[in-house]
Amino acid sequence: MTNKKEITAGIIIIGNEVLSGRTKDINTSTLAIWLNSIGINVREVRVIPDVEKDIIETVNALRKKFDYIFTTGGIGPTHDDITAESISKAFNLEYGFHKEAFSILEKYYKPGEFNEGRQKMAKMPTTANLILNPTSGAPGFYVKNVFCLPGVPSILQSMIGGLKNQLVGGDPIISITITLRTVESEIAKPITEIQNKNNDVEIGSYPFFRAGKLGVSIVLRSSNKSKLEKCNLELLKFIKSREIEIVEEV
Amino acid sequence: MTNKKEITAGIIIIGNEVLSGRTKDINTSTLAIWLNSIGINVREVRVIPDVEKDIIETVNALRKKFDYIFTTGGIGPTHDDITAESISKAFNLEYGFHKEAFSILEKYYKPGEFNEGRQKMAKMPTTANLILNPTSGAPGFYVKNVFCLPGVPSILQSMIGGLKNQLVGGDPIISITITLRTVESEIAKPITEIQNKNNDVEIGSYPFFRAGKLGVSIVLRSSNKSKLEKCNLELLKFIKSREIEIVEEV
Repeated sequence: MTNKKEITAGIIIIGNEVLSGRTKDINTSTLAIWLNSIGINVREVRVIPDVEKDIIETVNALRKKFDYIFTTGGIGPTHDDITAESISKAFNLEYGFHKEAFSILEKYYKPGEFNEGRQKMAKMPTTANLILNPTSGAPGFYVKNVFCLPGVPSILQSMIGGLKNQLVGGDPIISITITLRTVESEIAKPITEIQNKNNDVEIGSYPFFRAGKLGVSIVLRSSNKSKLEKCNLELLKFIKSREIEIVEEV
Repeated sequence: MTNKKEITAGIIIIGNEVLSGRTKDINTSTLAIWLNSIGINVREVRVIPDVEKDIIETVNALRKKFDYIFTTGGIGPTHDDITAESISKAFNLEYGFHKEAFSILEKYYKPGEFNEGRQKMAKMPTTANLILNPTSGAPGFYVKNVFCLPGVPSILQSMIGGLKNQLVGGDPIISITITLRTVESEIAKPITEIQNKNNDVEIGSYPFFRAGKLGVSIVLRSSNKSKLEKCNLELLKFIKSREIEIVEEV
């Protein structure tokens, strides 16, 4: 679905724990829902390991491809936290103590507790802009269009609110979900026809098994509210004509 | 962590529903845990939209980069299911009814129920190899090193067991997780030293907040059991020397 003024984002999940299957990524969902609400469309997500070369290559490929890039993970104090140094190298910027970040962390910890591990969290591209962290002190940062956030979901969630003013979005992307008691093959053809008549609305069809029953969720998405509503009316008309049971409409 | 005989995989999650944040991807975790158990390391995951150009480009880029590629999603009967046709184009293969798949589906449905939507699920590269589906009939398929699976997690899960004989893996990748009542900055330096002395073991450090308490999970991963155990002993020795509480060891 193309939108002339579409503003795009890419997400880079940095972390072996997602690639090993140990951790299921939920940061993509948090970021995507928030970005959609400010009119930014997530176009691609890449999950990559804690390997400097991979981080540099992926950041440099995606930052040219999309308006905004968000990275998650790898900005803590341990040996596998190499995002900040890799971003410095990706942008050819000096990596070292960021004065403001150092000062924030120095105040955050009790005297004597600001040890070497914690000081590492103040190291990043020295000219980066900070992203404040209301949960656990250590700030994220951004360089040009690349925003670096932590991997712990609750901390990430607490930091994105403060970012809104740094991003230029578009019209919020809104969605309508209609959940039906049917199977996809019964509705495939008419839904295709509705999609073909509604180019500014993205129609998704998602089958599920829930509590032993089959169903399909039809999701309509658009940044144009009136076109979304027109498409929804056509969809409801078709559902009524076939006497398909609507389980839920949100 | 390099392993001379490392066998690698990439995963391509095809689906707007993950990019919009509506659906949290759990197929990566299912595939990665299974692949690790047969000695295949997932090196990258990409989540891309239901857009033909994106699917073709991503498949063609990754299938040269890794030993195996797994795609999930987009092989159902609706308009947004375009994986099979896109894979045909990526490999320059004829897209059409696959005889064996058609025959499987024809038998699966009751007479008169094998409608146009359902027939679409038999369309794929006509020379593809099938991946049998014990849950819902419609097979997946593979072409060379690219294995195409459905997006519905329970169906995907039921299909991967039958794939084992098609893949050549290495030594299983095993892991040990030790969960500690500490914070990362307290252990960062000694863990770095242990990592530096154990190059064939990948050490990950993952902070968490659970039930209001802070902790860190240290994950050791390797396909070499004796090196993993040696590294684990060094880690436990350090933990004991610092009198750090072990919450769990698995």
